[in-house]
Amino acid sequence: MSQFLKAHICEIIHLNDDEFEAVLPFFTQKKFRKRQFLIQENQPVHEIYLIEKGILKSSTVDSTGKEHILQFAAPNWWISDFAAFFKQENASLAVDCIENTEVYSITHESLNNLCSKFPAMEHFFRVKSNFGYVALQQRILSLISKSAKERYEDFVRQYPGFTEHIPKQFIASYLGVSRETLSRLYS
Amino acid sequence: MSQFLKAHICEIIHLNDDEFEAVLPFFTQKKFRKRQFLIQENQPVHEIYLIEKGILKSSTVDSTGKEHILQFAAPNWWISDFAAFFKQENASLAVDCIENTEVYSITHESLNNLCSKFPAMEHFFRVKSNFGYVALQQRILSLISKSAKERYEDFVRQYPGFTEHIPKQFIASYLGVSRETLSRLYS
Repeated sequence: MSQFLKAHICEIIHLNDDEFEAVLPFFTQKKFRKRQFLIQENQPVHEIYLIEKGILKSSTVDSTGKEHILQFAAPNWWISDFAAFFKQENASLAVDCIENTEVYSITHESLNNLCSKFPAMEHFFRVKSNFGYVALQQRILSLISKSAKERYEDFVRQYPGFTEHIPKQFIASYLGVSRETLSRLYS
Repeated sequence: MSQFLKAHICEIIHLNDDEFEAVLPFFTQKKFRKRQFLIQENQPVHEIYLIEKGILKSSTVDSTGKEHILQFAAPNWWISDFAAFFKQENASLAVDCIENTEVYSITHESLNNLCSKFPAMEHFFRVKSNFGYVALQQRILSLISKSAKERYEDFVRQYPGFTEHIPKQFIASYLGVSRETLSRLYS
């Protein structure tokens, strides 16, 4: 089962079997059920998560009780409240499962130990952080400069195959449009 | 003058004088005048920039010709079209100077060589990338879940002392509000 993790890491760096055996204990495998929360708002954020199976979302609830979705994550994506994780503050996001989920998690302390022990893993996480930055930049450009139709097209491009797996109200919330507007974009 | 760069790096990692002398040649010092462009849309992005003096902005222009500002940068901030830089694609952002500016720049190739030669610098840039990610996440949460007044308060918090240096129309563009709305938020 850990072949998944090895393949994921080896998309960016080379690790032989012995090196991977030394890296593996820094991670923990976990399972969560649909609707279960990995992270709750205002709670400490101990871990970041690599998705092996399932779909998750990160979101925030505004002062009127409305949910706003920051990000979806599917297999091979990482999810957490990274801001809270890196700054070791309480979460401003919630992360929960849209489907039953299996992940590899790593704690803040393990991540730092892993990176200081294995420079290649520091490189891996630098590249991953850059990719995460790129995804957020695209999300912001979509939000500040594009129409609802263009934002929907960006969503389909960024999350290919997701539209069948994610309830429509979540996609509408991600795009910042009503369900009625979303229905028009589909047709 | 390179004391600025050393102090900036040593906020995150320790470098002695000999190590810094080996790191310094990977960077180039450059000066730009007010209104000059460091990056133009649809052009290749060769470098990322650490600001020593001045204020810059990164922005995009929508199909109606309206400018949307993604980010401001002041001394000790990094700016570029990071998405285009990391993916080695053409820019979807422009970066230009609000004031006369002095920067340290580093190319994609030099960044990778520097990181592979000095694991401590790989760590430095991983941490910096994480900080950049955090700033973007805060920007998205502001955009998707907050009122104009709350977004203005976030701006003042994120860019302390900037409001006096940045023309009002740029702040309005960053916040996604009209100048009239911004004037109401000031009072």
